[in-house]
Amino acid sequence: MTTIDLNADLGEGFGRWQLTDDEQLLSVVTSANVACGFHAGDAATMRRVCELAAARGVRIGAQVSYRDLAGFGRRAMDVPSAELTAEVAYQIGALEVFARAAGARVSYVKPHGALYNRVVHDEEQAAAVVDGVLLADASLPVLGLPGSRLLEAAGKAGLEGVTEAFADRAYTEGGMLVPRGQEGAVVTDPEAVVARSLGLARDRVITTRSGARIEVEARSLCLHGDTPGAVELARRVRERLETSGVRVEAFV
Amino acid sequence: MTTIDLNADLGEGFGRWQLTDDEQLLSVVTSANVACGFHAGDAATMRRVCELAAARGVRIGAQVSYRDLAGFGRRAMDVPSAELTAEVAYQIGALEVFARAAGARVSYVKPHGALYNRVVHDEEQAAAVVDGVLLADASLPVLGLPGSRLLEAAGKAGLEGVTEAFADRAYTEGGMLVPRGQEGAVVTDPEAVVARSLGLARDRVITTRSGARIEVEARSLCLHGDTPGAVELARRVRERLETSGVRVEAFV
Amino acid sequence: MTTIDLNADLGEGFGRWQLTDDEQLLSVVTSANVACGFHAGDAATMRRVCELAAARGVRIGAQVSYRDLAGFGRRAMDVPSAELTAEVAYQIGALEVFARAAGARVSYVKPHGALYNRVVHDEEQAAAVVDGVLLADASLPVLGLPGSRLLEAAGKAGLEGVTEAFADRAYTEGGMLVPRGQEGAVVTDPEAVVARSLGLARDRVITTRSGARIEVEARSLCLHGDTPGAVELARRVRERLETSGVRVEAFV
Amino acid sequence: MTTIDLNADLGEGFGRWQLTDDEQLLSVVTSANVACGFHAGDAATMRRVCELAAARGVRIGAQVSYRDLAGFGRRAMDVPSAELTAEVAYQIGALEVFARAAGARVSYVKPHGALYNRVVHDEEQAAAVVDGVLLADASLPVLGLPGSRLLEAAGKAGLEGVTEAFADRAYTEGGMLVPRGQEGAVVTDPEAVVARSLGLARDRVITTRSGARIEVEARSLCLHGDTPGAVELARRVRERLETSGVRVEAFV
Repeated sequence: MTTIDLNADLGEGFGRWQLTDDEQLLSVVTSANVACGFHAGDAATMRRVCELAAARGVRIGAQVSYRDLAGFGRRAMDVPSAELTAEVAYQIGALEVFARAAGARVSYVKPHGALYNRVVHDEEQAAAVVDGVLLADASLPVLGLPGSRLLEAAGKAGLEGVTEAFADRAYTEGGMLVPRGQEGAVVTDPEAVVARSLGLARDRVITTRSGARIEVEARSLCLHGDTPGAVELARRVRERLETSGVRVEAFV
Repeated sequence: MTTIDLNADLGEGFGRWQLTDDEQLLSVVTSANVACGFHAGDAATMRRVCELAAARGVRIGAQVSYRDLAGFGRRAMDVPSAELTAEVAYQIGALEVFARAAGARVSYVKPHGALYNRVVHDEEQAAAVVDGVLLADASLPVLGLPGSRLLEAAGKAGLEGVTEAFADRAYTEGGMLVPRGQEGAVVTDPEAVVARSLGLARDRVITTRSGARIEVEARSLCLHGDTPGAVELARRVRERLETSGVRVEAFV
Repeated sequence: MTTIDLNADLGEGFGRWQLTDDEQLLSVVTSANVACGFHAGDAATMRRVCELAAARGVRIGAQVSYRDLAGFGRRAMDVPSAELTAEVAYQIGALEVFARAAGARVSYVKPHGALYNRVVHDEEQAAAVVDGVLLADASLPVLGLPGSRLLEAAGKAGLEGVTEAFADRAYTEGGMLVPRGQEGAVVTDPEAVVARSLGLARDRVITTRSGARIEVEARSLCLHGDTPGAVELARRVRERLETSGVRVEAFV
Repeated sequence: MTTIDLNADLGEGFGRWQLTDDEQLLSVVTSANVACGFHAGDAATMRRVCELAAARGVRIGAQVSYRDLAGFGRRAMDVPSAELTAEVAYQIGALEVFARAAGARVSYVKPHGALYNRVVHDEEQAAAVVDGVLLADASLPVLGLPGSRLLEAAGKAGLEGVTEAFADRAYTEGGMLVPRGQEGAVVTDPEAVVARSLGLARDRVITTRSGARIEVEARSLCLHGDTPGAVELARRVRERLETSGVRVEAFV
């Protein structure tokens, strides 16, 4: 039977500011990418999200980021490798405290925002992120795009790389994401997102922007939780997968 | 044989800025209070200090603080208990990653600056700090002033409280520190500091500002490392203790 | 004819996070307390709010705060006077750039959150805030509670002090606000808030929690904009005032 | 008579941390690039440096930076133009308050660190910086490298561009700086720095790393103040210039 993991970004508020509907999303996803304080995620929120996730059996992942609250981690930064490595490890360690206190543990690492995009192609930063994971816990899988420098570096270092796909993003014929900002980069029609999710999860295929069907390897689907209607859409995706014979299950 | 621990604040730079002579201090002290990023201490510095400390067998302590880089953690803050607890745990977890990577572990917790002073008398914040330690690791001792609400709360919670004293600070007849800012609050004569260190370590006594000799309980002496001549003075203190038959040894 | 100013906090998002419905509020109030980056308010938001305010003829005030993004400026801090003075001036100067670029200017200063509450009774911090205003622009009025140390210090320094009142907060018999956290501190019934607004604006009286009617001096009413229904309530307040013969007009 | 301006970065501490010897440098330079809080420079330090500069008749410039205290503004960032523009204006406005309070004014703008390097070639960020200056004060000159996109954009916008050169940096044959990190990028021999300063100021020439002599246009020389011996070297440069018939004078 085909299985797929569903992941989403959680705990992306900071202090007075809230963003994601953590409680609702945790009833849908199997893996929670928890913000660790560098782009979002104050300590009290991290604690609460870990408790909620642990209570529901949702896996806790460290969503590590550049240090950039003002830019929400969406501004690429030329961070020297030694600093980036230490900052990644710092974030994982901070989250681990709350995961353990909730009776769980950090189960994987996923870079956030601009760092996620950067390590698709930047070997140096990809290696720095992997070094940070090794420093913190060499048993942790890393979640990323198939074909990314990140998963390549993870593999070389003996870390498990876990592939993910995006049902609400347009793909190029080469299997890469169409950059945000280009026309049609984001798929907004809910029914299309649901159908694409099923295609990715069950058949490992996606229709590219030119209409071609290509294979995409993905052990996890990333659902977005910070837009109106996002939770409802996530629910429909999960339901369609399950009624179509796909088992929704954490990858770890 | 009498034994005493020597502790000092380390890693109190941030990025481009350096403050403490970490390498030199680590050749003198037995316990290193490592800044965890909230008042000082970037991640790369935390990593480096942990590596240096582990290599010398110096114990690593989490020097937890209010979130206040601009004020170096020296401005008292009315932080709600739930936030303070989570922030304390966050800092301990972040440091633990670097301690473990260096083959050591976080061995104790010591509040920094304004938080240290606040939990001498503030029961609510003292309890919040202790809750943060419990959340992170209930086996960790807490370093503080004898008679402080912090050590009281630690004791109630089943944490080990470790007493410390300051050879370069004036004491009241009640055994409290004369607040900085009052005349004579800081003892600047090096020979006096050395003599007071020996009195505290070997005889458990200190001469108060009025000339009385009182008993002070202290398993650790705090040495300061951020002033000119500080390292040299720390060396003289350690030498005098050792030549006077006091064993200098970590408390844990 | 009786006139009253209506003020509200605006621009209290930060980067990715939004909080206040700035555009809607600006169609109701006559004075906008614009966050200046210390508790909220990134630079791009400050610019946008100033442009919107200037276009509507709404006065722009500098809502100065402790440096505390994580706590939204709601945690009292023991900031030394020289630092507080400089930080207040810094915030005013930063906002002035955007006000002037929009064809307006900063017209007044109002402390935010914990700083606002602190300078009701703390003479030292009140004086430090006033010094910050003097440093930036000695012609600026200061908005605060009648009887506060802030308005007292402003008066001594030759600054204009402008009194304000809160229709949605319970008052003690002494004319002070019942502290948040105490039962009944916040008036939640919309009709009561509207009625109390009219009482304050037209008759300069408020009913205290014990049912007594006391005089309250107020040239401005503070409306809150960060709760559901807040904008609608603000609209009703303004409408009731205007239909009852009160002119709604900026105090400056 | 040939004249040259001498500029240096000042006020680059933050809170507890000090970096530059502001008082000594202000007795040598004619233009002070004052850090504005984004890479360094707390508000109290900004105030103090402005007072010292004004008292000595040294011009005050806004040293604007990416928002990056942890990286001291040395990490290039992909900041969207609208944000960068607003952040530049914010910093200029904040500094202006202290300059005016000291009886002076902000006289020019110079980007710091990674932003300085980025706008040598990045048209978009160069335009964003210029827009920020225009927003704050369209009469302000901009200090930068000859041939940089920054000075080009400034010129197009009607701002005065002021060229500067670095006596302690190696130059390529194309008149660009050899990037730090490459061998020989920094000239460390004091006598060589003094001689190169004179060459730049009096003869508008520099010897490149390959030994060629090329023309370099520069109305200002940048002196560094954050290394041991820097102040002494700066003094020698100024002395040599003055005894060689070059008038040392602010460009504005």
